[in-house]
Amino acid sequence: MSKKKLNVGMVGSGFIAKVHSNAFRQVGHFFDIPYEVVCKVICGRNQEKLDVAASRWGWSEVEIDWRKVVARKDIDAVDIAVPNALHSAIAIAAAEAGKIVLCEKPLAASLEEAEIMTKAVERVPNLVWFNYRRIPAVVLAKQLIAEGRIGQPFHYRALYLNQSGNDPSKGNTWRYKRSEAGMGAAGDLLSHVIDLAFYLNGSIQQLSAMMHTFAPGRDVDDATLLMARFDNGSIGTFEASRYGVGCQNRNAFEINGSKGMLSFTLDDMNQLDFFDATEPVASRGGRRIAVTALAHPYGENFWRPGHVLGYEHPFIATLGDFLNSIARQEPFHANFADALAVQRILHAIERSSASRGWVNADGQPA
Amino acid sequence: MSKKKLNVGMVGSGFIAKVHSNAFRQVGHFFDIPYEVVCKVICGRNQEKLDVAASRWGWSEVEIDWRKVVARKDIDAVDIAVPNALHSAIAIAAAEAGKIVLCEKPLAASLEEAEIMTKAVERVPNLVWFNYRRIPAVVLAKQLIAEGRIGQPFHYRALYLNQSGNDPSKGNTWRYKRSEAGMGAAGDLLSHVIDLAFYLNGSIQQLSAMMHTFAPGRDVDDATLLMARFDNGSIGTFEASRYGVGCQNRNAFEINGSKGMLSFTLDDMNQLDFFDATEPVASRGGRRIAVTALAHPYGENFWRPGHVLGYEHPFIATLGDFLNSIARQEPFHANFADALAVQRILHAIERSSASRGWVNADGQPA
Amino acid sequence: MSKKKLNVGMVGSGFIAKVHSNAFRQVGHFFDIPYEVVCKVICGRNQEKLDVAASRWGWSEVEIDWRKVVARKDIDAVDIAVPNALHSAIAIAAAEAGKIVLCEKPLAASLEEAEIMTKAVERVPNLVWFNYRRIPAVVLAKQLIAEGRIGQPFHYRALYLNQSGNDPSKGNTWRYKRSEAGMGAAGDLLSHVIDLAFYLNGSIQQLSAMMHTFAPGRDVDDATLLMARFDNGSIGTFEASRYGVGCQNRNAFEINGSKGMLSFTLDDMNQLDFFDATEPVASRGGRRIAVTALAHPYGENFWRPGHVLGYEHPFIATLGDFLNSIARQEPFHANFADALAVQRILHAIERSSASRGWVNADGQPA
Amino acid sequence: MSKKKLNVGMVGSGFIAKVHSNAFRQVGHFFDIPYEVVCKVICGRNQEKLDVAASRWGWSEVEIDWRKVVARKDIDAVDIAVPNALHSAIAIAAAEAGKIVLCEKPLAASLEEAEIMTKAVERVPNLVWFNYRRIPAVVLAKQLIAEGRIGQPFHYRALYLNQSGNDPSKGNTWRYKRSEAGMGAAGDLLSHVIDLAFYLNGSIQQLSAMMHTFAPGRDVDDATLLMARFDNGSIGTFEASRYGVGCQNRNAFEINGSKGMLSFTLDDMNQLDFFDATEPVASRGGRRIAVTALAHPYGENFWRPGHVLGYEHPFIATLGDFLNSIARQEPFHANFADALAVQRILHAIERSSASRGWVNADGQPA
Repeated sequence: MSKKKLNVGMVGSGFIAKVHSNAFRQVGHFFDIPYEVVCKVICGRNQEKLDVAASRWGWSEVEIDWRKVVARKDIDAVDIAVPNALHSAIAIAAAEAGKIVLCEKPLAASLEEAEIMTKAVERVPNLVWFNYRRIPAVVLAKQLIAEGRIGQPFHYRALYLNQSGNDPSKGNTWRYKRSEAGMGAAGDLLSHVIDLAFYLNGSIQQLSAMMHTFAPGRDVDDATLLMARFDNGSIGTFEASRYGVGCQNRNAFEINGSKGMLSFTLDDMNQLDFFDATEPVASRGGRRIAVTALAHPYGENFWRPGHVLGYEHPFIATLGDFLNSIARQEPFHANFADALAVQRILHAIERSSASRGWVNADGQPA
Repeated sequence: MSKKKLNVGMVGSGFIAKVHSNAFRQVGHFFDIPYEVVCKVICGRNQEKLDVAASRWGWSEVEIDWRKVVARKDIDAVDIAVPNALHSAIAIAAAEAGKIVLCEKPLAASLEEAEIMTKAVERVPNLVWFNYRRIPAVVLAKQLIAEGRIGQPFHYRALYLNQSGNDPSKGNTWRYKRSEAGMGAAGDLLSHVIDLAFYLNGSIQQLSAMMHTFAPGRDVDDATLLMARFDNGSIGTFEASRYGVGCQNRNAFEINGSKGMLSFTLDDMNQLDFFDATEPVASRGGRRIAVTALAHPYGENFWRPGHVLGYEHPFIATLGDFLNSIARQEPFHANFADALAVQRILHAIERSSASRGWVNADGQPA
Repeated sequence: MSKKKLNVGMVGSGFIAKVHSNAFRQVGHFFDIPYEVVCKVICGRNQEKLDVAASRWGWSEVEIDWRKVVARKDIDAVDIAVPNALHSAIAIAAAEAGKIVLCEKPLAASLEEAEIMTKAVERVPNLVWFNYRRIPAVVLAKQLIAEGRIGQPFHYRALYLNQSGNDPSKGNTWRYKRSEAGMGAAGDLLSHVIDLAFYLNGSIQQLSAMMHTFAPGRDVDDATLLMARFDNGSIGTFEASRYGVGCQNRNAFEINGSKGMLSFTLDDMNQLDFFDATEPVASRGGRRIAVTALAHPYGENFWRPGHVLGYEHPFIATLGDFLNSIARQEPFHANFADALAVQRILHAIERSSASRGWVNADGQPA
Repeated sequence: MSKKKLNVGMVGSGFIAKVHSNAFRQVGHFFDIPYEVVCKVICGRNQEKLDVAASRWGWSEVEIDWRKVVARKDIDAVDIAVPNALHSAIAIAAAEAGKIVLCEKPLAASLEEAEIMTKAVERVPNLVWFNYRRIPAVVLAKQLIAEGRIGQPFHYRALYLNQSGNDPSKGNTWRYKRSEAGMGAAGDLLSHVIDLAFYLNGSIQQLSAMMHTFAPGRDVDDATLLMARFDNGSIGTFEASRYGVGCQNRNAFEINGSKGMLSFTLDDMNQLDFFDATEPVASRGGRRIAVTALAHPYGENFWRPGHVLGYEHPFIATLGDFLNSIARQEPFHANFADALAVQRILHAIERSSASRGWVNADGQPA
């Protein structure tokens, strides 16, 4: 009995398109999914680069005009892997054409776009690639919180640091231009941090933020700092920076609760640190959990206990869960609505930074 | 040839008085000092506790009334190791009596007191026990910064977390009462963090802060968060909390600069992490420096390379440096003026938290 | 221009067959190879399991009899992923049929078999899956040694610990039976350790070993310890155990040389620790190198700096290098001859353990 | 009520004499002891050095001839802090004079001497400074083992590495001469490791060892390796080296048992790692216990939770326990008999290394 084919059209051919391509290629190897994923067409503006990508990853066809991809009847899903400012038009057109829509984060270059996009996809299955939600250690953190293992949360503390902004070879790409990216470190890095905060600790009520640009003449933030109050009564500090020299990809969070602490950093993505404050004092301590056991999230999908995962596996898991959610008609997260909530916080951050005061989650003065 | 005697009168008999006593007892064993330190009199309100402390640490006499200690002609130095609200009267009286004055941190329970105290001690040698400045790893960080090893600073990130506030056995001591402590986590913990920031990264220009109390009915902050701009162009995030469950005494800082990163945590106080971004990419990485070599700060004073120091050694080093500075008539830091600068920031934090906006270092709206 | 097809027949359908399948599927995505790898036929004894594996990984055909696979003219390469005692017959038949031969480690269940196999494959391209040689951090260690960064080696120290032997659910598989595995921890775990030692530190001259079985009635070693002298004048300690409770997959080595130290553990496979003893004392320390930069081994093949690899990537790199070596007619390692050298040491270990004395690398009394 | 005076005469004025002096000075500050320890006389061959030491540490008198110290009626205890080959004569004379005898490790330069010394001290309280037994983390390890927390031990793995042998400034001291030290790394470093193994894991039954000298012309071992069988059925690997470049004072052990693992390293002496294999798989992991709580060994003696200890504190604790054991007429360990057991193993190691075979604990071929 053969599976239903799912023809994918991907718009984009850069680094993240490579990562998505890998997920499409690998998802069937590690997840029981009700579709045969077909890498049908890859779309981009550079023909040569496109041919290479198609050949390397086995996309059957190449296409220069994304509108043609969206218009094709034989395409079931459109995946958007292009700079932020281009997300909106493609997502809306794809949704209107009834396609399943997958979109890279951050959802859009502005809150307005994000709102329109989210409305547009209401009737189609939709996903935003907040991949870090599906790191096994992060899912385990979520489970431990849900089980009450850390009790009432007091502090949420997160940062995402890389050193790209200080690197002359990178500072001139689309990520450093407001017209193409919308924001700098906030959109690129902090969006992940905020999404994880929502996932793990719930909604943010109020915040006070500072956006800062170190490089002269650059029109996006190089670093964004904020303090926040969560609906659950905890308070948070956040930091995202492209001037975190010494850190290549440090996406980390810590939560202190009445019964314990959780710590995670992407540098050691196969590990979760858990301090159980309910243990007897003499033998308690922060446990370094190697989150690779069969009993762990996605433990049955990939390798064996003690056999670590890499950067790409959470993308594969995201896609696997998404495809199953479609078939089962179950809700999937992070979807466009989830990403819109993140975008609202990014917007509120801009408002707070400009007004130098506290704002509510909707950006209004608090 | 015998050394000049330095008769010390100590006011206080609690935990920190024990730590100071140890410093007085040990300083001559590890530092070449021009005095014979004499533990002359220990003063406190509880006679029984006092007798025990005197007997244990070899204080020759005990005294109930600190005014008598200050008035004694044979006392050369007065050390203040009592709750914050009591610092002021003792320090002023001791200074007026011409004594050398040593005072536990934070300097006072209010900015007003701190200002008066600082003025009062202008003509006598004075010290505030910001002990963490003399951890060898912290001094090494200072040296590396001074040598330009991390280049232009971008980010300063520091926190001090313990879990005392969440501990029913502790929440009722003087440290949790505004009348005796002045502030909560801010005075107790953040004062150290701010002092180290001054020491390592210079003055704070502006800040926005949030003070928060988790425990119902408590009139001091359980946690204080802030964002700051430094005079050197870097930006900072700070956090101090007594609800950092899982952390017993985590006083940590990180600095990202154009050429490298420094990281320190009191949990591993004999180590300093240094990432040198000027090294070739292929072999660069964060170095964990065991700061125990003879070539390191205080390396000649204590043990041998690889033989670690403990909590009390920075107190001994503080005292050793102070006594030598007196004899050589050289400036000593941290003194009352340094501690006053910290107190100003604490005051500005209170203002910012109350007004929910940015303030300058003097507490005025920015 | 289409590439030459390379039709692969794989014998085996267990865990390691899954890992190999993944390598065949992924190699073209990350390596420029001169072949189109075709997953032609998968062979195993359990039809149901075979069908699942074929469907999951896209093997075009299934086959019960490995002799038929080897005999097929359209098969270019035979990959052996079955229990150790079965390697020999398949490898010899495949080599005689002129196939490219890939074989899981350890090469064989006995030295005699290994010798015959190695002779048999002399005229065909051959590979043994000593995958850990191609962990970027391990290759970087090799490069640093070659550059003289650790100077003259003094100590080589390695261990490989898991806890499988103490796990009732595992103790009854083929890996715990002499008839199928040949050896226990020595063949399973120590073979990797010895191969890495050869790769990084050269040949072993003499050794004294102890093999030990904790489980009553088991006829293979649960743990093997040895001391060794290397040809380069350094001395080594080795340990492999299935009773390393607390360790799931700890494959670690350390080398102390006159100029520095290297440390690696598979638990943190994206990192290499390097202590450069030629640095000034005050700022030297063990560097934790995140081996994910473009300048690092395989840095251009997989993701971006700071984007970590997982368990499967070294297998992909092994295959990528092998396929290129065939096309370029260049030597490839680890091949059967390399694996035979490991097998000789395993044999010498058995002799030493039995005789309770030192032996040479050939197993003769030293 | 004043305490009984305990007049101490110390023979030695080098580094370890400084450490012992500190212990005598500090013991009364942290331990309730039934004596007033009096630093009466310090004895050494270099008058100038002696005067400095006496002045620095407050020894009332200096003496050139140890025989005079031993002969003094007013001396209650003799502490031996001189090179190994001198221990024997002093210890025997002191014991014959009825003194309490404290001796630095290793006990002697030869097994013969150690046996005579041990016999000589039978009637007097005696101590050997195996200080690492009283690191709180080590005592906690002992407690956890006694409580059955790691179950049946399988593996004991220990090493002690420094880099002194490769340091031209050190290679010419008494520690590198057979006539003064007896042995090299084995006596200096491995003696600690063996003592801890006895303390934590019981007696060694059989062993096979290799002693190795890297430096041409040196007549003691630079490194010693061994494999061992313990009476409790576990097996062990040991390594001590002065060529462990990159390690300054790494004294580490690991124990794998049926229910868990313990790991310790002197580099992080305030921490003990404990893996509890009886925890549910999903949330288990190696716990890093900060061994500074009041509930921990010596937690009431020194500072507060989260306030770390340094190199000297285990010496103070050793002395505190010893003085109390004398007053209570209770057994004390490590005493001369314990140190003799270590010396027997060192002797067996020499035999095994020479014969290149396994030996029993008594050095006879096994």
